[in-house]
Amino acid sequence: MSIGQYSFEEYLSVVKSFHGYTAPGLAAGGFMVDLALSRMPGGVLFDAVSETRNCLPDAIQLLTPCTVGNGWLKIINLGRFALSLYDKHSGKGVRVFVDAQKIRAWPEVEAWLFKLKTKQEQDGQLLLEQIRQAGPELYGIETVLVQPQFLGKRRRGGIGCCNMCGEPYPIDDGAICRACAGETPYVVFGEANRSTVAWSRQ
Amino acid sequence: MSIGQYSFEEYLSVVKSFHGYTAPGLAAGGFMVDLALSRMPGGVLFDAVSETRNCLPDAIQLLTPCTVGNGWLKIINLGRFALSLYDKHSGKGVRVFVDAQKIRAWPEVEAWLFKLKTKQEQDGQLLLEQIRQAGPELYGIETVLVQPQFLGKRRRGGIGCCNMCGEPYPIDDGAICRACAGETPYVVFGEANRSTVAWSRQ
Repeated sequence: MSIGQYSFEEYLSVVKSFHGYTAPGLAAGGFMVDLALSRMPGGVLFDAVSETRNCLPDAIQLLTPCTVGNGWLKIINLGRFALSLYDKHSGKGVRVFVDAQKIRAWPEVEAWLFKLKTKQEQDGQLLLEQIRQAGPELYGIETVLVQPQFLGKRRRGGIGCCNMCGEPYPIDDGAICRACAGETPYVVFGEANRSTVAWSRQ
Repeated sequence: MSIGQYSFEEYLSVVKSFHGYTAPGLAAGGFMVDLALSRMPGGVLFDAVSETRNCLPDAIQLLTPCTVGNGWLKIINLGRFALSLYDKHSGKGVRVFVDAQKIRAWPEVEAWLFKLKTKQEQDGQLLLEQIRQAGPELYGIETVLVQPQFLGKRRRGGIGCCNMCGEPYPIDDGAICRACAGETPYVVFGEANRSTVAWSRQ
């Protein structure tokens, strides 16, 4: 059982190094990405969607050219453990999802995915072993067409300096940046190296 | 000039392998993450925030244990090229941002960040060289306190099967999953391996 260019064990070691631990979601995700890749025609420039924020984005980032930072991976949180790869121009692609019926044959996988056991009650080794043994069997594949409004690059307008914090920001966001408009998660309780007077770029 | 465990050149090669190309945003991001790490006390379990979706998340994922998939990196799109690392329990941390005044001394960096030149007009090599030469000089640092509502794990409730698509989904989302509720970016135009009758898990 292999995942991309890796044996299952090699893949788990890459996972551990990037993700911090050998999460079952990345083991399953590895097979899912592999399945999706195997159905994509060669030479197609593709983008990816992860339908969950949990685990699966990292499998996509490890096994495809698509990352969050390069914009080729989008996370659209639909709450399903599923992903799609699709031609970035035509939108044609494949979607791989967890098949709720198929996993019933693998009790530790079922218990994990449906949260029938607490993390403490789970047998982590057995879970990884069942995911490995089942291989691609747990998943379904369907062909999809990504709708046009989700294709193409986000167009970004000009960059100016925020009249409040003085930092560069997209001027399309308004007269001040989103952070100064109240979306910041921080309280700033000490400053260093910041020019004290906000200024505008003319 | 080094970035984390890497020389600048080694770092660019890691960037190329993960991100696909040696984006200037990752070169700058490398110094920014490095600066933030240098201000964090040792032994602290920290989470990260990227204030932009562009490039910076990948620098964080390459140079810290925080990834999108493990949930330790959150992207809060404030439109600023800035990041924070903070103690995941207390919320205390550091924020590193691009200092709009400091970059004026580096014309190619300024032209890139404020989009004064098109991509075609940019001198990519010179840009990378200026980012390398400037090193940590382009950035400001401030101490922050992340507000309590942004700390802690997302609590997720139970998992059931969607009454429409039959796939596992968080039952807190309602009677059907978000995709079936209309948030899907796809048209499904062919099915394979999916059980034809939707079913509910009892």
